[in-house]
Amino acid sequence: MREIYLDNSATTKVSDSAAAKAVGMMKECYGNPSSLHTLGILAEREVGAARAAVAGAISASSEEIIFTSGGTEANNLALFGSAEARRRRGSRIVTSAIEHSSVLESAKQLENSGFEVVFLQPDRNGNIAEEQIAAAVDERTVLVSLMLVNNEVGSVLPLSAARAAIKRSNAPALLHCDAVQAFGKMPVSVKSIGCDLLTVTGHKVHAPKGVGALFVKKGVRILPRQFGGEQEKRIRPGTESTPLIAAFGQAVADFPDLDASLDNARKLWQYAKERLLTIDKLTINSPDDALPYILNFSTNSLRSEIMLHHLAAMGIYCSSGSACAKGEPSHVLKAMKLSRTAADTAIRVSFDYATTFEDIDLLVEAVKDGIAKRGKY
Amino acid sequence: MREIYLDNSATTKVSDSAAAKAVGMMKECYGNPSSLHTLGILAEREVGAARAAVAGAISASSEEIIFTSGGTEANNLALFGSAEARRRRGSRIVTSAIEHSSVLESAKQLENSGFEVVFLQPDRNGNIAEEQIAAAVDERTVLVSLMLVNNEVGSVLPLSAARAAIKRSNAPALLHCDAVQAFGKMPVSVKSIGCDLLTVTGHKVHAPKGVGALFVKKGVRILPRQFGGEQEKRIRPGTESTPLIAAFGQAVADFPDLDASLDNARKLWQYAKERLLTIDKLTINSPDDALPYILNFSTNSLRSEIMLHHLAAMGIYCSSGSACAKGEPSHVLKAMKLSRTAADTAIRVSFDYATTFEDIDLLVEAVKDGIAKRGKY
Repeated sequence: MREIYLDNSATTKVSDSAAAKAVGMMKECYGNPSSLHTLGILAEREVGAARAAVAGAISASSEEIIFTSGGTEANNLALFGSAEARRRRGSRIVTSAIEHSSVLESAKQLENSGFEVVFLQPDRNGNIAEEQIAAAVDERTVLVSLMLVNNEVGSVLPLSAARAAIKRSNAPALLHCDAVQAFGKMPVSVKSIGCDLLTVTGHKVHAPKGVGALFVKKGVRILPRQFGGEQEKRIRPGTESTPLIAAFGQAVADFPDLDASLDNARKLWQYAKERLLTIDKLTINSPDDALPYILNFSTNSLRSEIMLHHLAAMGIYCSSGSACAKGEPSHVLKAMKLSRTAADTAIRVSFDYATTFEDIDLLVEAVKDGIAKRGKY
Repeated sequence: MREIYLDNSATTKVSDSAAAKAVGMMKECYGNPSSLHTLGILAEREVGAARAAVAGAISASSEEIIFTSGGTEANNLALFGSAEARRRRGSRIVTSAIEHSSVLESAKQLENSGFEVVFLQPDRNGNIAEEQIAAAVDERTVLVSLMLVNNEVGSVLPLSAARAAIKRSNAPALLHCDAVQAFGKMPVSVKSIGCDLLTVTGHKVHAPKGVGALFVKKGVRILPRQFGGEQEKRIRPGTESTPLIAAFGQAVADFPDLDASLDNARKLWQYAKERLLTIDKLTINSPDDALPYILNFSTNSLRSEIMLHHLAAMGIYCSSGSACAKGEPSHVLKAMKLSRTAADTAIRVSFDYATTFEDIDLLVEAVKDGIAKRGKY
């Protein structure tokens, strides 16, 4: 049975070249980058090459990249590190209700510690309107944190409106962008976005789990969350995970032409949507202008868990929402005010450069089969 | 030229079996452990097996293991997580001046936030006396954090005295032990130590850099430092680094008979010490009862950096102290009140199961050669 992996927004398979790079760092270039001898210097050089690759991919410079253990740590560092550093300049934080849990939960902690946090609510399609952002940002705002692409439905958030709102209100605010789901799927430029902080992670782009990075714009000061040695400019101390950092750099260096891939994904996404809509009662939860690597739909016929198991038994892997909220109802679909039935029967499929039309056909047939065999909701 | 790696306290080469395990997790078992489908379940199973291996190696149970990105993160979590959780029960923290920077710097942060921190000073051999610990722990003490083995000179700290002092003073204190340098080199049991928290890391035991673990005794509550998903009981959220965690488990499962290895290391250590002491002016900084995997000496003839480069040119890798304090004078040797000359000419060699008597001979000859060729201090 051929396996069809349509859960690339949860995590990806590591590419051969990234895995080979990691192994080389484990068994040959295994020095500690802080060691003064040859093996240390070689390891540091590899970390530097990876830093340049990640920086280059988002139009940043190497000195603006802080490697972390992943997206969650980078988001925590961005939120706490910037809010705590600016506590004297204001008390308001603006974010959205559809952020990743690592942003949401950090924001809630900051709320508990005295910040006023605005959680912008999405519309039925998972979109956040520019006007909402403009209305929320005021002169006391110290941080605006918005994701570029939502991980569950693929909606693309208007970061430019956040940049404009900060400027217009003359707020002492930093702009943080969680670009985890956008990175490697659409062109991401910290310059175009105009952000001060931006989060990316390795395991969504065919690098291993356990490594991510936070872009911190030159001149922007954030406070560390972790204390110890001198690594990562003391903003993120601890021995560098050289195998994962080098593998991350390799995976980024291997990015295909993102515009061409995006065109291809758009065709797949449109095809998948049309084919799925031939199924009775099925509804699409992703907006029409979603990033075409993520398609969220509700069968309104079969509970998500049962459908997922049915699909997995046929070798098709997808999810009911964020993998991080195992078992819990999706906070994103809830914020989108989906009906109970739609929320309980939602499925997210997430594509890859390698996804084919045939994969989509097999998915659609399997969904139909699941509804036919496993009965009604 | 044969390479002789004597910098195992800085980091180790990843074993073939651990590297193979990591690659399997990257390319085959690549699911997100939080995903509900088969690939997710298989990944979670591997994480569980690694957790059992690490737990078993320190006489703990699986539910007491929290995986982190390394020793620095585990130490930060232990210090902040326990001190903040017990802030209402007391304000005193007892630690030593020779801890790893991740403990020292965290303790200093806690000092800035209102805790009274006692930094116990070592004697000339890097030992902390039992009486010092007994005198420092009082009824307001909420945390005692001591390393089991010092990373620069190998001194073994009297953790049992800390346990006894907490009991005797009836303190509401948790006992944290940074066992990074002891783990895999001597038997480590959380039960024998009687600690509530214990830090271990992968890259000192032939697993890759980027993974560690904090033992948190059942029933002990600490506060998280990172917020997000439900991973690691919400104490350390974020997608698990399945390749590194599984590799860590493999490396631990591969531990040799630690008592037998220790006997062997003791012979090597004694031999190295005797041979080095034949060199004019050379002094030994490690105590006689050091863990025999770490030997620190001062040539009192040639600056550390010059000696390190000389040795590296001959394929021999060691260090001048902790790799984390690149370039800075060692805080450990400083606390031991070594003479300026001794501190400036210190070299740390750290062994491995694979180190041989021949390696020692070559090291001693190379040190002699360095002194002869590179002139006087």
